[in-house]
Amino acid sequence: MTLATDVLAGNRRALSRALTLIENGLDGRDEILAELYPRTGRAHLIGVTGAPGTGKSSLVNQLALAFRQQGRTVGIIAVDPTSPFSGGAILGDRIRMRDLSGDSGVFIRSMATRGSLGGLARATADALKAFDAAGFEIILIETVGAGQAEVDIARHAHTVIVVEAPGLGDDVQAIKAGILEIADILVVNKSDDPRAPNTVKALRAMLDLGSQRSAQAMVNHHGRVLEAIQPVIDGNSQSGWNVPIQLTTATDGTGVAELVAMLETHRSYLVESGELARRVQAQMAYELDSLLRDALLERLLASVDSSAMASVVEQIAARRLVPHAAARMLVSGLTEA
Amino acid sequence: MTLATDVLAGNRRALSRALTLIENGLDGRDEILAELYPRTGRAHLIGVTGAPGTGKSSLVNQLALAFRQQGRTVGIIAVDPTSPFSGGAILGDRIRMRDLSGDSGVFIRSMATRGSLGGLARATADALKAFDAAGFEIILIETVGAGQAEVDIARHAHTVIVVEAPGLGDDVQAIKAGILEIADILVVNKSDDPRAPNTVKALRAMLDLGSQRSAQAMVNHHGRVLEAIQPVIDGNSQSGWNVPIQLTTATDGTGVAELVAMLETHRSYLVESGELARRVQAQMAYELDSLLRDALLERLLASVDSSAMASVVEQIAARRLVPHAAARMLVSGLTEA
Repeated sequence: MTLATDVLAGNRRALSRALTLIENGLDGRDEILAELYPRTGRAHLIGVTGAPGTGKSSLVNQLALAFRQQGRTVGIIAVDPTSPFSGGAILGDRIRMRDLSGDSGVFIRSMATRGSLGGLARATADALKAFDAAGFEIILIETVGAGQAEVDIARHAHTVIVVEAPGLGDDVQAIKAGILEIADILVVNKSDDPRAPNTVKALRAMLDLGSQRSAQAMVNHHGRVLEAIQPVIDGNSQSGWNVPIQLTTATDGTGVAELVAMLETHRSYLVESGELARRVQAQMAYELDSLLRDALLERLLASVDSSAMASVVEQIAARRLVPHAAARMLVSGLTEA
Repeated sequence: MTLATDVLAGNRRALSRALTLIENGLDGRDEILAELYPRTGRAHLIGVTGAPGTGKSSLVNQLALAFRQQGRTVGIIAVDPTSPFSGGAILGDRIRMRDLSGDSGVFIRSMATRGSLGGLARATADALKAFDAAGFEIILIETVGAGQAEVDIARHAHTVIVVEAPGLGDDVQAIKAGILEIADILVVNKSDDPRAPNTVKALRAMLDLGSQRSAQAMVNHHGRVLEAIQPVIDGNSQSGWNVPIQLTTATDGTGVAELVAMLETHRSYLVESGELARRVQAQMAYELDSLLRDALLERLLASVDSSAMASVVEQIAARRLVPHAAARMLVSGLTEA
């Protein structure tokens, strides 16, 4: 029995070990991912993002409970991109466990950055594969904050929920405009707040302004591989989906059943319109982009003597060589060799 | 006269045009950077980061005024990584201009992400070169927030100031621990707040816990090229610098003169210990890393038919091909060709 076999058999301890291996980039990661990958593609990947203080974590818990009541298994990945080195995810698994503990149909995991942001996005994508292969039907990806990092991670989802709260951040409309572009469903949580109707109205107005996710933004985000294949694939996201706004109160579950129904509707829309296939293709293009960059750099480093490389870096640092020219030189040296 | 010549001659309009060209990745960017690069390396690059609400922007303004009083020219780059698509930097140049307007020894520029975070870090690094080549002696790089994005950008600096404020975020020690690792100087702003001494005490305790920037974190951050050349360069940052904590009140300038003196001391330490050369080398290795990835991927895309690439992506999306295996296949195809 390999670790991958145990994960596929639904062994929780094996999944936990596999996730640690993935998160830390340990030996054997590529092998286990290769074994798991063919068994992925069944889960509905739901990204949940929004600023701190919106009650996002409580909402994720409520969604998990609602899906469990339908008898569906739920994986939760809580991603914290604000903790760059220390590794301690601030969304403690322990706190989350209070409502969901003892339920073998739920699996919760927190992830924090170790090193680079690119590393976190990659680790999250790979962790999703492990959850998916282990058979979880719904996977909720929760991110802290609302910056570029969160956008990068939310893009691994099929459906993106952006959570807002009344009266929060009315002065940072510029940020909202950015985050709205990735929303498939908007949630105004804390709907018992008297300012909630105004927040809904403001969001509706912003949506009507047409800040929909543009094909160009998708390409920018998903990188050069997607851009290269765009002319030969049917890559244009059409806008057959109108972003709905749902009021919720996560503390008592108000609106959560409606939100679950909306998620179902969006999933059906994705499948029937062909948009799911397009999104998955864009995600895979993005992943291939990043893997190719890594593999190509490794190959170059293997072919260039480390003292020669050190000399190039020293010459750049001494301003005797321009970085772009140095890169071109190293790359063309490869071709000649 | 080329645009680069005008920038080098200190023409403000030319610098502004060059920065637009750099930020938007327009045609001619590489050429102008190649002309500017040999004239860089003279400025002191100072990163200023910290959570919103710490009074960071006011402190940057005060620092700029203090350096101007010494007769030194100052460039300010305000980077906003929280605005992923919309392009509008929330730190308006106009607001900043109130104290510093009409002074030809100061140049202020805001930058927001367009597309990817990697793109912003690159554009920031290139904008720094333009400021440096244009002759600004002090360049302040201000970032919003305290996540990985800010860390990435602060790493382009020689000296990193992390700004805290009393009573802010006492519950998110995990975040602070991460950001402390990149600090050369800690500032507790709003020193007139009665909680300021406690904040200083807490920060001192955390510093004593030894969360100093580790060589491994540097390598993780600066990528594979640095890791590859590490054995042949003297790459270990020694810890001959004790991170000082300075109290300031940016609204009235209290403590700013002391902070400027500290920055001078740190600059001297960097030069005399050889740490400046090491940091510049690490920065250049990082930049080369990223440029090599781009150039190598471009070369691969030029050699692979777009429909062949589309077919690979489709096979990955259909789970018939594992992403890692696909990347290896494409890269080894290059070798055989």
